[in-house]
Amino acid sequence: MPTLYNRIANQNLDRLSALSDGVFAFAMTVLVLDLALPAAGAVHSEHDLWRGLAKLAPNLLMYLTGFLTLGIFWNGQQTQLNYIERSDRDLTWIHLAFLFTITLMPFSTKLLALFFHYRAAVLVYWFNILLPGVLLYTSWKYVSRHDMIRAETPPEIRAAICRRVFIAQILYAVGAALCVFGSLWSVAFIFAVQLNYAAAPRLPRRKRADAPAV
Amino acid sequence: MPTLYNRIANQNLDRLSALSDGVFAFAMTVLVLDLALPAAGAVHSEHDLWRGLAKLAPNLLMYLTGFLTLGIFWNGQQTQLNYIERSDRDLTWIHLAFLFTITLMPFSTKLLALFFHYRAAVLVYWFNILLPGVLLYTSWKYVSRHDMIRAETPPEIRAAICRRVFIAQILYAVGAALCVFGSLWSVAFIFAVQLNYAAAPRLPRRKRADAPAV
Amino acid sequence: MPTLYNRIANQNLDRLSALSDGVFAFAMTVLVLDLALPAAGAVHSEHDLWRGLAKLAPNLLMYLTGFLTLGIFWNGQQTQLNYIERSDRDLTWIHLAFLFTITLMPFSTKLLALFFHYRAAVLVYWFNILLPGVLLYTSWKYVSRHDMIRAETPPEIRAAICRRVFIAQILYAVGAALCVFGSLWSVAFIFAVQLNYAAAPRLPRRKRADAPAV
Amino acid sequence: MPTLYNRIANQNLDRLSALSDGVFAFAMTVLVLDLALPAAGAVHSEHDLWRGLAKLAPNLLMYLTGFLTLGIFWNGQQTQLNYIERSDRDLTWIHLAFLFTITLMPFSTKLLALFFHYRAAVLVYWFNILLPGVLLYTSWKYVSRHDMIRAETPPEIRAAICRRVFIAQILYAVGAALCVFGSLWSVAFIFAVQLNYAAAPRLPRRKRADAPAV
Repeated sequence: MPTLYNRIANQNLDRLSALSDGVFAFAMTVLVLDLALPAAGAVHSEHDLWRGLAKLAPNLLMYLTGFLTLGIFWNGQQTQLNYIERSDRDLTWIHLAFLFTITLMPFSTKLLALFFHYRAAVLVYWFNILLPGVLLYTSWKYVSRHDMIRAETPPEIRAAICRRVFIAQILYAVGAALCVFGSLWSVAFIFAVQLNYAAAPRLPRRKRADAPAV
Repeated sequence: MPTLYNRIANQNLDRLSALSDGVFAFAMTVLVLDLALPAAGAVHSEHDLWRGLAKLAPNLLMYLTGFLTLGIFWNGQQTQLNYIERSDRDLTWIHLAFLFTITLMPFSTKLLALFFHYRAAVLVYWFNILLPGVLLYTSWKYVSRHDMIRAETPPEIRAAICRRVFIAQILYAVGAALCVFGSLWSVAFIFAVQLNYAAAPRLPRRKRADAPAV
Repeated sequence: MPTLYNRIANQNLDRLSALSDGVFAFAMTVLVLDLALPAAGAVHSEHDLWRGLAKLAPNLLMYLTGFLTLGIFWNGQQTQLNYIERSDRDLTWIHLAFLFTITLMPFSTKLLALFFHYRAAVLVYWFNILLPGVLLYTSWKYVSRHDMIRAETPPEIRAAICRRVFIAQILYAVGAALCVFGSLWSVAFIFAVQLNYAAAPRLPRRKRADAPAV
Repeated sequence: MPTLYNRIANQNLDRLSALSDGVFAFAMTVLVLDLALPAAGAVHSEHDLWRGLAKLAPNLLMYLTGFLTLGIFWNGQQTQLNYIERSDRDLTWIHLAFLFTITLMPFSTKLLALFFHYRAAVLVYWFNILLPGVLLYTSWKYVSRHDMIRAETPPEIRAAICRRVFIAQILYAVGAALCVFGSLWSVAFIFAVQLNYAAAPRLPRRKRADAPAV
């Protein structure tokens, strides 16, 4: 009964997407809630307030990093789900595990914001980037193996999605390795990689039209 | 007027799903917010930070348990809703009651994380697994009795959904009963049951294709 | 251009629903976050923990009331939106105002939980039930006047939706008025009204099939 | 392969909408969570409680302002997305940047509520209105340039969306500039502009039917 099955499976994907959007939306918003206001008692002039706000700049930057990370993984997951025909129990649990690593992101980001000069914080943060990457890779391998990719998906996209996760994770690993020279090198490198994925120069437009919108 | 009614009822199910996804997404994310960072004042070296993080391991495990529980119930509810044709006022309220028990989950999980060596905490946690199970069972009985299951649903799926809730709840009850030997036995047993539902060996693939993706 | 307009308007309703579900999901979940765990320092035995949990019972009941209120209004809004054909700017803002009153619900509920023996708390809570009721009524009057109800909606449903809001609000007002005898009378009466809307005896099933699933 | 691409792109827009609704829903609800209850210790009579609640009025007004701002931007983004045919990577990141500025809104609003008599707080708040406005403008310019607007969109709507963002931002800038006379002038002016966009007199209905429901 293909009709019944397809409808159910598709609905599954819809609800998985909705759950994911909820988790991402919450994680993205909650990051900024930790930006503490300047203490009212310490502010007696415009100058005091500007200075209090300026002190928040490093935190704000760290939260921007967290948001970028979440945005990149949200894009990555969405692109995959767009090309997947149906879901099953295993795939659902791979994505639930992926979402679990996403819910840890506010913790890792706060840890990095507070202890950015410690290698431990950088490594935890990197591990929190590695895990969802591995799970997205697992998810794509799983759907490839079990014939769950939409039939119309051109082969170059199938390869591109794997390659994309792979290259990104190598760059992040390089970033993490840089912490032998100092944790700030790692933070700066990882931030640069993320900015690149979010906003950097891209292939000419004609080409991109066929590429996954990762 | 079947057309009007169907459209409205379906939309009802869509909004019930959306509300449920929101509640689950929030409950899943909020669990991890309670992971307290190591106190900055107590960290003077990489070693201190690693030790501070290691101390979080039991909490992290407890939160993983909470996430597993939420994931299992999310899957269970979703599977049911996929096979349900339309909603009505009673069914909506059964699912709202189900969602109420879900919103209690972060409380029970925190309680268990803080007092895992007390039987009271284990029993409260088990009760918080029992309640949504009973409500999902009630929901399925209700739609069976009122002819609200999609016509194409094969009979073996109708039975499987009931059996599934039933067996899981018996296992959880056994887990809860183990707390006469000590609360940690209960926690370990319930965690094992949950891991089994999320990741354990399954029927061969051909068979599973027709089974509900619980 | 009716095709363009309809598509856009429908999508508007979809996003309004999605935003509403998000707001409700968050408000429902956040209520329970305020259930404070028993203090670890005060718990030295199973008995202490049970007693600590028992002390939470009144709070839990109050939160259940808050959840019921949110569930009732979620149902009320959903039923209306199901019968509405399209949205426009005014209707959107009526529903945004409605959502604003919903976001105030966790505040009013906490206020009532903390000060349930004060009339002021009861009146604020009642006002927080009155406002969304008035806005749902305004919304239905607006769509009736501007011909925005789905054409197939039978006249008895059009009347039923108004009547429903009206009767409920009269009962809540009676509940609020009872606080001249003591605030607990109000709380008990309002809770009873809400339980009635959620779970009480209903019309025989045949009849209900045509009535709005409020 | 236009069919494949369209389906994927549309799904992208759906998930972008869902993520946005989640972020907005959370930001809207979280604003009110900061409304602190009157301290139980300071309340000994009905009178005390009413006075404690009255003291919250300025905060409540500030939160209403925040909610209005979020509502206006939610409407603005939704209107754009309704007229957009498909998404690509750049557009997605423009909207993620937009959402980042939205997540900052609870921070800016709390800052303004606490320091409304300081110009710094007003300017930060204004900047937090300017940024999402600029990003919505960028988004519309981008889809205009890359032919991503739905073909049936009439030219007057294309122009209207730009004009709308432009005029609103000029009014907000005027409001911000008023803070040379005192920060309260700015707050009052910006609040008046927002109320106007949410609830003020509008074009006669016939005309409005063709205009974007911003």
